[in-house]
Amino acid sequence: MSLSASLPDLVAALPTGMVVTDADILAGYRQDRAQDPAAGTPAALVRPTTTAEVQTTLRWCAAHAVPLVTRGAGTSLSGGSTAVDGALVLSTERMRGLSIDSATRTATVQPGLLNAEVKAAAAEHGLWYPPDPSSFEICSIGGNVATNAGGLCCVKYGVTADYVLGLEVVLADGRAVRLGGKQIKDSAGLSLTRLFVGSEGVLGVVTEVTLRLLPPQPSACTVVGIFPSVSAASAAVLAVTEQIRPAMLEFMDAVSLNAVEDLLHMGLPRDAAALLIGQSDASGAAGQAEVALMQQVFESHGATEVFATDDPAEGEAFAAARRAAIPAVEKLGSLLLEDVGVPLPALPALIEGVAAISDTQRVTIAVVAHAGDGNTHPLIVFDPADADQTQRAQLAFGQVMDLAIALDGTITGEHGVGRLKKGWLPDQVGADVMQMTAAIKAALDPDGLLNPGVIL
Amino acid sequence: MSLSASLPDLVAALPTGMVVTDADILAGYRQDRAQDPAAGTPAALVRPTTTAEVQTTLRWCAAHAVPLVTRGAGTSLSGGSTAVDGALVLSTERMRGLSIDSATRTATVQPGLLNAEVKAAAAEHGLWYPPDPSSFEICSIGGNVATNAGGLCCVKYGVTADYVLGLEVVLADGRAVRLGGKQIKDSAGLSLTRLFVGSEGVLGVVTEVTLRLLPPQPSACTVVGIFPSVSAASAAVLAVTEQIRPAMLEFMDAVSLNAVEDLLHMGLPRDAAALLIGQSDASGAAGQAEVALMQQVFESHGATEVFATDDPAEGEAFAAARRAAIPAVEKLGSLLLEDVGVPLPALPALIEGVAAISDTQRVTIAVVAHAGDGNTHPLIVFDPADADQTQRAQLAFGQVMDLAIALDGTITGEHGVGRLKKGWLPDQVGADVMQMTAAIKAALDPDGLLNPGVIL
Repeated sequence: MSLSASLPDLVAALPTGMVVTDADILAGYRQDRAQDPAAGTPAALVRPTTTAEVQTTLRWCAAHAVPLVTRGAGTSLSGGSTAVDGALVLSTERMRGLSIDSATRTATVQPGLLNAEVKAAAAEHGLWYPPDPSSFEICSIGGNVATNAGGLCCVKYGVTADYVLGLEVVLADGRAVRLGGKQIKDSAGLSLTRLFVGSEGVLGVVTEVTLRLLPPQPSACTVVGIFPSVSAASAAVLAVTEQIRPAMLEFMDAVSLNAVEDLLHMGLPRDAAALLIGQSDASGAAGQAEVALMQQVFESHGATEVFATDDPAEGEAFAAARRAAIPAVEKLGSLLLEDVGVPLPALPALIEGVAAISDTQRVTIAVVAHAGDGNTHPLIVFDPADADQTQRAQLAFGQVMDLAIALDGTITGEHGVGRLKKGWLPDQVGADVMQMTAAIKAALDPDGLLNPGVIL
Repeated sequence: MSLSASLPDLVAALPTGMVVTDADILAGYRQDRAQDPAAGTPAALVRPTTTAEVQTTLRWCAAHAVPLVTRGAGTSLSGGSTAVDGALVLSTERMRGLSIDSATRTATVQPGLLNAEVKAAAAEHGLWYPPDPSSFEICSIGGNVATNAGGLCCVKYGVTADYVLGLEVVLADGRAVRLGGKQIKDSAGLSLTRLFVGSEGVLGVVTEVTLRLLPPQPSACTVVGIFPSVSAASAAVLAVTEQIRPAMLEFMDAVSLNAVEDLLHMGLPRDAAALLIGQSDASGAAGQAEVALMQQVFESHGATEVFATDDPAEGEAFAAARRAAIPAVEKLGSLLLEDVGVPLPALPALIEGVAAISDTQRVTIAVVAHAGDGNTHPLIVFDPADADQTQRAQLAFGQVMDLAIALDGTITGEHGVGRLKKGWLPDQVGADVMQMTAAIKAALDPDGLLNPGVIL
């Protein structure tokens, strides 16, 4: 193949050691957190530090028709950064530049920085970068942009797309373009910045991101409700969101509660059917009213215990418990990770339908959810050594997405389609939208080299 | 030409009277509020009421290679809905369907509804649609989507794109597609919903919009500052926005103040160099702190008078004065309307640069601004009967955009490029982005029939 013959050209064009072909190192870049056993083996790995090095890499890929998989921190839960046989993997892990501009309240960062590092740098300037995926301590900002990542505070503060003011992107042919900038409002030309957010590496490689920052989040009060049934909890979610816009409204079911308690030993209620964690960061009387409303709604929907605190550390302990769900449930077995979302009134039907699928397929499905915006994470647990159970888990994986589509929802609220969900995307969006997607992909990446197998 | 020969096919395919060729009626659909004297004369006008009728129209256009100009309420300030000779004008004015879904907190509307009608319908359900262009009482929601319209509250609450959850769009070949939906978060596939917002009718015809609604806006306190110089006022804007996120922060200069006072006789300070109107809708102590901060900043930046009120009617009177600026300044002569935006620290340089251009070209330029997000509206006044002055006004029009580009800003923050600003778009975004734009346009509208002459 052309790659091995021409790889020396790329090695020579980049700084010494930037191109890696060591099989042991490459093995660590095959899979992402989706742990797809079908992951391919890349031909080489490039770890650039500059936009110019990314351009050199993409020009070489274009010249030699070598596919490229862009990888951030490798935390994709949908196989978005799973390697493809013979591809070049471009890891952004060494692109770690950052500058904060207090005057424009923006952060301009390279994609390899972790979300938590951006948050910390903003905080040093008395500013706040809101999007907070549960994996914020280990996921990269480039991956957040690629998937339009969400998180816990997004029910009030929006998702990654709401904070991306500008991008630098290297296109399939190696050209680098700037989209948007530090200006807050911009209606000049097509919204290419917004098109690239969530495009999962199939349209270009993001090499710099300009993020809008906010003043610090006001301190939040937390309301926790313990429910005797998942339906009572999901009905309470609707009753809250119809009346206020909480700063957080998270759901955990019994399986996830017990898995987290096994991991963290923090005294979570093991016999609860569901837990809701609400937060209000409104100030003064408005905040008190939101807290009182959540308490009252939880109680009137049958919560057996309702607990409110204005201690940030106590509130954070519950949020941390929620964020620990995926690593905790991973202790129970291998996971197929769902990210289905529905319009809020369909949330109870989604959660009940997932339980029915769990029963039918005889697989454990833990459910956690960013309940306030209808985005749920059913986590399907299976033993890969048990072929029959694995098959039932895979059936359940598709049935959960089918259910979300039937409820006018989405197969992915914040993780992206990746490689694992693309089979369901046409069912959600339809053939015409798939054709539009392919046409735009072909317009920007005519040889189809960028992240092949993702979305399309 | 093919149009006149085949027009009877379209007439026959649509309900009686839906296709209009009466010259007197067509004359009213040549121009929009940009009043471009170079507007063309359309061959016919179609006023559909349903998506199916829009599809019929676009299929006919595709079959006969007839260009189509989509028009909402005709309030474009950049010539986005100016007619083209021989084109079909599709007016959405009769597409006025609306439904509010309180459970999902969404409005699903046809594009011809006015922004104010959407706001009013939401309010009837105790909900709020935030985006508030100054023209909100006369502009259509379809036009708002086409331009990614902003407004006064956008400094805190974001622009139209932040509220569009879903679209129905008829493509150039007549296919109707649904993008997004009522789910709040959606990372499934390319962000086509976001691509279509702000695409100014060049990628398709929006036939339905699903908008996110919020709980009602809390009542706001208003702080007004009267400044002896525009530089003092713009410095105060920066000092406010570095510390808080106000719910409104508007700027008016002396020309616009006097023009509005001539129109409204409300006692505005005729001898002020500039006026700032700030609002806080934070509740309780947080709101009091924001009001106190704006008062203190205005005073410390040399305001000769600072006035604060928690009376919503008084606050609205100042906002209404600001919104009246364009119609008021129109009384002084014909206008070339700018919409330039810059990163906030460059706001003083932009406002001072516009004054210098006004001096050099010897034309009056009134300046109003959504100052809190760096988006300004220099209004260039000229007498079209004075050829020399007209030429100088046109030079000033370009120089203001050149200045914004030099300050790393944008030629349009919320009005769109339309036909009047497209000459400056390449200078802002560069040749590569123009090529990407053309490639995406060609992918979705290969015959280039949709809103020709806009953006590209």
